[in-house]
Amino acid sequence: MARFISQNQSDIGLSPFELKFKGKRKSDKTHLRMMDFSADSMVELKLKSIAEALPFNETDTVSWLNIDGLHDESLIAEVGEAFELDRMVLSDVLNTSIRPKVVEHDNCLFISMKMMRYEEAKNRLHMENLSLVVANGILISFQETKGDVFEPVRDRIRNGKKKIRNSSSDYLAFALLDIVIDNYIYVLSLLGDRIETLEETLLPEPSENALFQINSFKREMNYLRKNIIPAKEMITSLVKLDSDFIDFETTGVHFKELQDNINQAVETSDSYREILSDQLNIYHTTVSSKLNDIMRFLTIFSVIFIPLTFIAGIYGTNFDNLPELHFKYSYHIMLLVMVILSGGMIVYFKRKGWM
Amino acid sequence: MARFISQNQSDIGLSPFELKFKGKRKSDKTHLRMMDFSADSMVELKLKSIAEALPFNETDTVSWLNIDGLHDESLIAEVGEAFELDRMVLSDVLNTSIRPKVVEHDNCLFISMKMMRYEEAKNRLHMENLSLVVANGILISFQETKGDVFEPVRDRIRNGKKKIRNSSSDYLAFALLDIVIDNYIYVLSLLGDRIETLEETLLPEPSENALFQINSFKREMNYLRKNIIPAKEMITSLVKLDSDFIDFETTGVHFKELQDNINQAVETSDSYREILSDQLNIYHTTVSSKLNDIMRFLTIFSVIFIPLTFIAGIYGTNFDNLPELHFKYSYHIMLLVMVILSGGMIVYFKRKGWM
Amino acid sequence: MARFISQNQSDIGLSPFELKFKGKRKSDKTHLRMMDFSADSMVELKLKSIAEALPFNETDTVSWLNIDGLHDESLIAEVGEAFELDRMVLSDVLNTSIRPKVVEHDNCLFISMKMMRYEEAKNRLHMENLSLVVANGILISFQETKGDVFEPVRDRIRNGKKKIRNSSSDYLAFALLDIVIDNYIYVLSLLGDRIETLEETLLPEPSENALFQINSFKREMNYLRKNIIPAKEMITSLVKLDSDFIDFETTGVHFKELQDNINQAVETSDSYREILSDQLNIYHTTVSSKLNDIMRFLTIFSVIFIPLTFIAGIYGTNFDNLPELHFKYSYHIMLLVMVILSGGMIVYFKRKGWM
Amino acid sequence: MARFISQNQSDIGLSPFELKFKGKRKSDKTHLRMMDFSADSMVELKLKSIAEALPFNETDTVSWLNIDGLHDESLIAEVGEAFELDRMVLSDVLNTSIRPKVVEHDNCLFISMKMMRYEEAKNRLHMENLSLVVANGILISFQETKGDVFEPVRDRIRNGKKKIRNSSSDYLAFALLDIVIDNYIYVLSLLGDRIETLEETLLPEPSENALFQINSFKREMNYLRKNIIPAKEMITSLVKLDSDFIDFETTGVHFKELQDNINQAVETSDSYREILSDQLNIYHTTVSSKLNDIMRFLTIFSVIFIPLTFIAGIYGTNFDNLPELHFKYSYHIMLLVMVILSGGMIVYFKRKGWM
Amino acid sequence: MARFISQNQSDIGLSPFELKFKGKRKSDKTHLRMMDFSADSMVELKLKSIAEALPFNETDTVSWLNIDGLHDESLIAEVGEAFELDRMVLSDVLNTSIRPKVVEHDNCLFISMKMMRYEEAKNRLHMENLSLVVANGILISFQETKGDVFEPVRDRIRNGKKKIRNSSSDYLAFALLDIVIDNYIYVLSLLGDRIETLEETLLPEPSENALFQINSFKREMNYLRKNIIPAKEMITSLVKLDSDFIDFETTGVHFKELQDNINQAVETSDSYREILSDQLNIYHTTVSSKLNDIMRFLTIFSVIFIPLTFIAGIYGTNFDNLPELHFKYSYHIMLLVMVILSGGMIVYFKRKGWM
Repeated sequence: MARFISQNQSDIGLSPFELKFKGKRKSDKTHLRMMDFSADSMVELKLKSIAEALPFNETDTVSWLNIDGLHDESLIAEVGEAFELDRMVLSDVLNTSIRPKVVEHDNCLFISMKMMRYEEAKNRLHMENLSLVVANGILISFQETKGDVFEPVRDRIRNGKKKIRNSSSDYLAFALLDIVIDNYIYVLSLLGDRIETLEETLLPEPSENALFQINSFKREMNYLRKNIIPAKEMITSLVKLDSDFIDFETTGVHFKELQDNINQAVETSDSYREILSDQLNIYHTTVSSKLNDIMRFLTIFSVIFIPLTFIAGIYGTNFDNLPELHFKYSYHIMLLVMVILSGGMIVYFKRKGWM
Repeated sequence: MARFISQNQSDIGLSPFELKFKGKRKSDKTHLRMMDFSADSMVELKLKSIAEALPFNETDTVSWLNIDGLHDESLIAEVGEAFELDRMVLSDVLNTSIRPKVVEHDNCLFISMKMMRYEEAKNRLHMENLSLVVANGILISFQETKGDVFEPVRDRIRNGKKKIRNSSSDYLAFALLDIVIDNYIYVLSLLGDRIETLEETLLPEPSENALFQINSFKREMNYLRKNIIPAKEMITSLVKLDSDFIDFETTGVHFKELQDNINQAVETSDSYREILSDQLNIYHTTVSSKLNDIMRFLTIFSVIFIPLTFIAGIYGTNFDNLPELHFKYSYHIMLLVMVILSGGMIVYFKRKGWM
Repeated sequence: MARFISQNQSDIGLSPFELKFKGKRKSDKTHLRMMDFSADSMVELKLKSIAEALPFNETDTVSWLNIDGLHDESLIAEVGEAFELDRMVLSDVLNTSIRPKVVEHDNCLFISMKMMRYEEAKNRLHMENLSLVVANGILISFQETKGDVFEPVRDRIRNGKKKIRNSSSDYLAFALLDIVIDNYIYVLSLLGDRIETLEETLLPEPSENALFQINSFKREMNYLRKNIIPAKEMITSLVKLDSDFIDFETTGVHFKELQDNINQAVETSDSYREILSDQLNIYHTTVSSKLNDIMRFLTIFSVIFIPLTFIAGIYGTNFDNLPELHFKYSYHIMLLVMVILSGGMIVYFKRKGWM
Repeated sequence: MARFISQNQSDIGLSPFELKFKGKRKSDKTHLRMMDFSADSMVELKLKSIAEALPFNETDTVSWLNIDGLHDESLIAEVGEAFELDRMVLSDVLNTSIRPKVVEHDNCLFISMKMMRYEEAKNRLHMENLSLVVANGILISFQETKGDVFEPVRDRIRNGKKKIRNSSSDYLAFALLDIVIDNYIYVLSLLGDRIETLEETLLPEPSENALFQINSFKREMNYLRKNIIPAKEMITSLVKLDSDFIDFETTGVHFKELQDNINQAVETSDSYREILSDQLNIYHTTVSSKLNDIMRFLTIFSVIFIPLTFIAGIYGTNFDNLPELHFKYSYHIMLLVMVILSGGMIVYFKRKGWM
Repeated sequence: MARFISQNQSDIGLSPFELKFKGKRKSDKTHLRMMDFSADSMVELKLKSIAEALPFNETDTVSWLNIDGLHDESLIAEVGEAFELDRMVLSDVLNTSIRPKVVEHDNCLFISMKMMRYEEAKNRLHMENLSLVVANGILISFQETKGDVFEPVRDRIRNGKKKIRNSSSDYLAFALLDIVIDNYIYVLSLLGDRIETLEETLLPEPSENALFQINSFKREMNYLRKNIIPAKEMITSLVKLDSDFIDFETTGVHFKELQDNINQAVETSDSYREILSDQLNIYHTTVSSKLNDIMRFLTIFSVIFIPLTFIAGIYGTNFDNLPELHFKYSYHIMLLVMVILSGGMIVYFKRKGWM
């Protein structure tokens, strides 16, 4: 699980205009991909340099430039120059621990949020920062590494789905954000599955492992929430923002859907938090009730022998005058008394509901 | 109990215009029912196709088209074409895990929320998604399965109750929402009954079963709240929304009533949550106090025998010179001392309040 | 203690215009009382029918019609006709489990809230629903049973107190609401008294009864809050409401006072909730600390005898060659050793602070 | 510690115009004090009657009339007549359990809040209700008893501090409120001192007394908050209120400072609440860990003797054929075995970390 | 760790215009430093008196006057006169326990917040109050002691970074606040590191020291939050404030970034609070589960010996007629029975999962 916060001491006091990559380098190389499409045409290719992207920007088509890998500050600067982006945009792109945010600049809309992806092969959660720059006719997406959750959108473009091919870059931005949030919900639902599976094995057999799992689920949920809740705030201000780069007539209604989805994500995480806390309670109750049963059994077991041992002790004394010792069936009577006594105690304890 | 969230990986990244049924298929066939009424007339019939519904839409009467079963995407598309519904409305109708919402479109008002129904025969809660499309002179309701909570409204229409027969489709929408919320409260009151019944048996006899029940009630309450609270939000925005499809002069006041009712539902669920949490406390306290009583009893029992056994032990030693062994009534004196000692301890412990 | 919610299945889906009594019938008969007053005159009488009330409505005086008992739906309908009340008002009057609310209608202001009354004779809390209909020159109050908290207001009218005799029906409504809220505070203060009395006996002697009482106080407080908090909301919207039936110049300032009072009630209930939760903690701490003391004492008691018994056991063995058995003062030395040993242990445990 | 709420049953339903003292009579006599000042002059004297105060009101100077003791309703009525105060003001002045509030009347601003004072001599907190009536050129302060926190303000006036001598009655009101809130913070800081002192003695030695103190601090903090939080609300509405009696150009900025101060008070009380709750946890943990240590020690002590006693028991049996009894060094070997056995167990338990 | 609140009784009731240093004197001398810069020039020097600062104020350049040490009230007064500052500004500067705030005055903007600095050498947190006075062309910063977190900003100025050298005093104010908040996050991340390190050692070995650390981390986190949360409020109102001294076209966007950063700080502290509370739970669970294991082991150990000792006791009795004593292999059979019995019990307990 990733760390909750990190602040390099050397990054303190950097100017917001300084282009310095703040984060862990997660990829070796930078990859540039271009998808350029309109209702009728679609081009998809890998680029070798930013310069190759410029011609696409001059056409009427929608251009989607995707950049994987942020460690190369000079390349990011190049992007900035090519598309005339504010330096603050670039500085935000390079800060991978940034809080999800949306800022409207003069010539673009900047959106940043965490992208979660469950890597089935490695059975682990991958999280990285995603920045989107939305301008007229172009959308630039910045990712930390290759590999993302956007394939379905690319497929819709490739397959010539009408809506996306006819829409502008704002709709493309919506489609990307939508899929990011769908993945939040998917990741939550995977964790939820595990939590609900645990539930079923909790009551009959409260193993130490279950406790360990509950605590690790709590931690994971805490971590997911730490990333989802600020995203909810960001989506809310995106919906409220009267941006020039979003056509609120046509695309605005979709952005409201995002809000519903992320609200649902947050509410679900609330429910699971409560369930986890209940599970912890159930665990403790079951464990302590089991221990109580054992201790009660053992104590009662001891208690039954105590008077018996005492009686034997009495007839182990060496008094000269201890008449019972000399009767013929004293020993057998003693044994009988012991049987009756312990039987009586067992009945008594059973009646009291102690056994 | 149903799952808290589910997200099919294959549904991630679908266009909001894609008509794909997202949910569990709960019915085999699709049923179409039409009620068409005005102050003077009323027609009620089953339809075989959407086409049969169209003539009703052209009259001045209020038409209520009810569709049970959502798995047939082509039929939903047909409905969309017939009544010129936005594709987003249809896509929302097909998404049964949607968060309760209200959206005003150009030619209709879309309302979606969960419908709860307690099935007495099966003694279980049935929950499904309900979508309402309210337009001028027509209301279309989409349900996942046959069977709903709307019979009383149908009866009011059949029996020619003036208000509903004289009103427009917005009042019909209110009547349906009202009954849905009444069922929330009914389901809560049933759960509440069980909780309050449990209460009475809790203090005298805290069985493991009670604990199990408290936890299962908590889970159920959690689940109900997960569905009721977003509905409350939806109702609030419905009341605030200045929709063209609701006559706020005549029907608006009723929608405010809905708000009161759903608030009452939420507050009641709050109260029961608190009661459940108190019950859990009472359970734990009672169980531990019982255990404490047992342990204290057993411990005192042992403690009384300890010095007695010790005394017997002393006179069981084989010292050559142990004068007491040779007195005539030593044994009897020892027994007397033991009686006095144990009696004294019992009195002491009783005085201390330990027994 | 009353139930937290109740919803008759048969009442689900009733039209808001249906006049059906929803609640438990609490009185046998319906009683009508009229007080009609102006600065100079005052008439107080029991009415036999609604018809007798009508003449009072036509004068310039303020008329207060009080109706005890709501089960007679036809009589309520009659009231509605006589004073031209909206059917929704009547339907709300008949719904005794309604959430406190205030609605402005065309010709009247409708206010509904719970009325609490501590019945000293029976030592129990009586709660019922109160509805007020405020119109020009008339106030109609609907109660579930005979007996209410309004005697002081009636006395002020009878005794010719200037302010109330000179004011209009809005001031009368204020006076009634004021006294209802004063009774909330009074009931809270009675419960508070009992809570604070319990406090004093809690620390020295944590009896099971105290626990039972704390839990029952919590339940009662929960129940009071369930009724007071929505009333606070209602009062707040009443103050914000720019009603035609309240002269905000003269009477509005008094309604603000209501807000202060009910806020104080809610805050007090918050404080007592916290105190109760503290008391529960103190109870548990005291009980467990007591038990710990007992168990520690008993364990130490046992522990002291264990080595003594062991020593006696050793000299109870029957070895042929056990030299100590044959010395003259062996027995006495053993006793001495035992005394020293147990004394030493007692000193050790005392020094450690265990006894 | 004072009671949290009190409502005399006889005060229920009083008209808000009724002048009846509601509270506990705390002083024997009523004292009137007048300070009248302007930039150049200052007069300070005790008055015998309200009549003596009137001339001061007619001058251009600022007059501060302070009244200690509220039980004399006729005198309060006299004040009302002399300064033409609304009866509601007087009724609020007489209600000492009133919630802090600010109301603007036609000819004055009414402010009411609790005044706390730590009486060092008696080592206890004194709390009473303070009412301020601010009008042009005059401020009337009503206190329940003689003795207050205002001496520093009087000194500033006496010593001719420019600001206060040059300002109007609104600045005087600010100065009084400021000192009241400073005393809130001072009282909090005294309690805080005691809480932090307790902290230091908590971990090493968790005495019962510490527990008692934590609980009593919690109660005190609860009580302080009950009075400070509504005062915060009052100050907030005072700042928002666009009163004619406060010159917002010159004095308004000071009132904002009050807000900062009272916010700080509330936040500090929040912090201490959390600390107290942490202390409670630490107490419980330390106590239970101590007990656990003791029980573990005692149990291990017993456990070591159990097999030893068992061995002795075996050789205490009287079998005819028990060969070991007849070897020469059997006894000594048994003792040796016992020493080795118990030594082994001690080593084992130490290795396991149980001792 | 510093105290949570402190209020000198002697400071109660001071006029807001009184210049009195309220706080602990943390430095011996007052140091004045001036940085004066424009796009082309930069001067940095130590001043001996306020008078030396005045010439810088008359130029077009940006002047940053930094004052370390606040105990010299006359010097602060001199600053006030030199730069014509409101007395309230000076009084706020001298109050080091002031709540973070922002106030716009006629000729300057006053900002005050806590400055945190982790002193690596001394391994402790240094916190002091920072006041900024922002006016046209000048920024005055007041610190309690020498040594601050501003070196990176000074370096940017010294190194001629364009943005800061070309901007006005509002941008300088942003740069200082930015670095203060970065240090909040840095301090949080250091504490976070320690918390996460503790986590790893918690489960295997729950030492008393871990508990001590958790509690001390909680206290530290509580203390940090006490200072960060009001700063968040302050930043929010700074962003909302339409101040004349901040150019919202150019610098405003940066102030919004501050908001994001401080929100992130608060959210992170929330997460760590939750983690700490989880850690406490884990600690308690692990400790109690360990103790339970020990007690269970010891109890079972005792229980196994109890029947054995009892059997030996029986054959230690001295009955004349105890036939088993006289059989040849009685003793050996008894030992065999004992082995079988104890073996059986061990098997039974293992099967039950008790061992």
